[in-house]
Amino acid sequence: MYIVILAGGSGTRFWPLSRKSTPKQLMSVFGGKSMLQRTVERVLPMNPKRIMVVTNVLQAAETRKQLEYITGVPVDVIEEPVGRNTAPAIGLAASLIARFDPDGIMAVLPADHYILDEEVFRGTLVQARSVAESGTLVTLGITPTRPETGYGYIEAEGKGEGRAIAVRRFVEKPNLERAMEFLATGRFFWNSGMFVWGACTILDQIGAFMPELCAALAKLTFGEEVWEISDLKPQIEAIYAGIKGESIDFGVMEKAEDVQVIPASFGWSDVGSWSALPEVMEGDAEGHVVINSHGSVSIGSEGCLASGNGKLVAFVGVKDLILVDTPDAIMVCSKSAAQDVKKVVEELEKRGETGYL
Amino acid sequence: MYIVILAGGSGTRFWPLSRKSTPKQLMSVFGGKSMLQRTVERVLPMNPKRIMVVTNVLQAAETRKQLEYITGVPVDVIEEPVGRNTAPAIGLAASLIARFDPDGIMAVLPADHYILDEEVFRGTLVQARSVAESGTLVTLGITPTRPETGYGYIEAEGKGEGRAIAVRRFVEKPNLERAMEFLATGRFFWNSGMFVWGACTILDQIGAFMPELCAALAKLTFGEEVWEISDLKPQIEAIYAGIKGESIDFGVMEKAEDVQVIPASFGWSDVGSWSALPEVMEGDAEGHVVINSHGSVSIGSEGCLASGNGKLVAFVGVKDLILVDTPDAIMVCSKSAAQDVKKVVEELEKRGETGYL
Repeated sequence: MYIVILAGGSGTRFWPLSRKSTPKQLMSVFGGKSMLQRTVERVLPMNPKRIMVVTNVLQAAETRKQLEYITGVPVDVIEEPVGRNTAPAIGLAASLIARFDPDGIMAVLPADHYILDEEVFRGTLVQARSVAESGTLVTLGITPTRPETGYGYIEAEGKGEGRAIAVRRFVEKPNLERAMEFLATGRFFWNSGMFVWGACTILDQIGAFMPELCAALAKLTFGEEVWEISDLKPQIEAIYAGIKGESIDFGVMEKAEDVQVIPASFGWSDVGSWSALPEVMEGDAEGHVVINSHGSVSIGSEGCLASGNGKLVAFVGVKDLILVDTPDAIMVCSKSAAQDVKKVVEELEKRGETGYL
Repeated sequence: MYIVILAGGSGTRFWPLSRKSTPKQLMSVFGGKSMLQRTVERVLPMNPKRIMVVTNVLQAAETRKQLEYITGVPVDVIEEPVGRNTAPAIGLAASLIARFDPDGIMAVLPADHYILDEEVFRGTLVQARSVAESGTLVTLGITPTRPETGYGYIEAEGKGEGRAIAVRRFVEKPNLERAMEFLATGRFFWNSGMFVWGACTILDQIGAFMPELCAALAKLTFGEEVWEISDLKPQIEAIYAGIKGESIDFGVMEKAEDVQVIPASFGWSDVGSWSALPEVMEGDAEGHVVINSHGSVSIGSEGCLASGNGKLVAFVGVKDLILVDTPDAIMVCSKSAAQDVKKVVEELEKRGETGYL
């Protein structure tokens, strides 16, 4: 199997720790290795044929640096000149695989997701591969553990786990009431953004539903040497200059006929904002999650999250706050407003304060 | 007039910006000059005979360094080996003044108070001196502008401003109901901890009400040279080893017969904790007071206070918080819990984390 890791996100919701040059996937969100490094290491035991990391030109140097230590599996870092959402990145990777290995099956994995049980995760990928070998588009659906309103959902034709089920439809983020209805049916799963399919299968589907992207990708020419892809940069730049941004969900998945979902329960979060961290990290006695710190002191406080830039962190009479310290900026945010962190980035952009972006 | 500045406070309530070696009076609370420097500069236009700064041995070096630039008026830095509250510090300074200038009048000023209108302040001191010349103990009472429960009060025999009034009694910090009653009478003033009296007058009163301190101070011997006081250190150490800590309020003021209060309105705060800063500094459009920062961004937030260690500060969905960043520690605190900051210091002491104290 080929692993295609989508690592081009700009991740403004983890500001001030995430910046344009070090977005969430390159950050040590949990301390230690970065999200990207964890994503790569998670698939290494499967011994994939190649790992292809699609990232933005701004982050390419740091991405290469973070993956230098990976051995045993070839790792390609493919630079997008600009972000064009997931469909072009996936189409590009599929074109490369199809060129050199027409029967190749690829797993598409976001670089910035949290996965608790890696064994179960790999088992699910293996299962998905065998389904994909029959020419089906496969998506991993996470069995929901709560009526989450921050995720999109996949409605399947039936319930259950451990087997692939035909997809009825993809559903946008619901409100709480609908999310609770979804849970009650047993047929709804969180849309994880993780896919498994044949390279030629997805290219066929792009041909059917995204003719412009298909035509652009068709212009790619390759050297004779197998996997001689380092000179593609000018071609990729030309392709990206002429295409629109589009997600693979909207561009293909919502329209394709034969899509299967594999329900899975390996403990998953897209870690979409600071407020998601406490879901996936254990708190202390007061429910605080404190990372990158030199310890903490809590006086009459509970449920806070802090990234302490190596410092001692003190909470006094506060509840459900997010505190993030970095060398040049510091933020305090209520957990319930974690989605508004990106507004700070927007405001700084408006002010031309590029040094903080 | 002699100016005696009490600069020995340890100021744990401004942690993490204040530390044992740089307590509040040595901090740049408002940006720029320290509280002590502001206190000294405030009296320079009065051309005092001497300025005597009584401080703790731990802070003496930094205190001297901060006052090096003062010229035109002799400045003595007198080191206490341990803090013994205000009565010994005042008694010591009074003994020195009385030795070389028996008719000397001294103003006792805390090093860490905020004063808005310095002209009015100096005018009040001049007025107090003329009252003190008749052998009276004089205290400055601040005309209250709100029913503050964080200050002690002075009840006078009458109302009014612009003249000295006999003191009926000193009153501890009241609850809100009593504070409102105090305000309604017009006869209550905030106890500012600022005093003016003859050096011999206060020594007589110490003799009457604090015989142990009086006996200890009586052991001081001086050189023949006028104001030759640099060799007093071993004597001061011996005196302090044998005396109890006591405030001048409890030791003398509450017991003395002839005490006058001069009601004053020069805009005053003891800046007793982080939450007092917004009282004396103007906030921005959202009511945030941000010091030591490289600007701020506010998204759905109001009424916060931040000391930003030179960084950009961002508030997202938060209200009435105190955020303090320093090179090795960071604190977030609700304004209503500002008094509990000292509990962080206590906890760190308990843990033996002396590096943060």
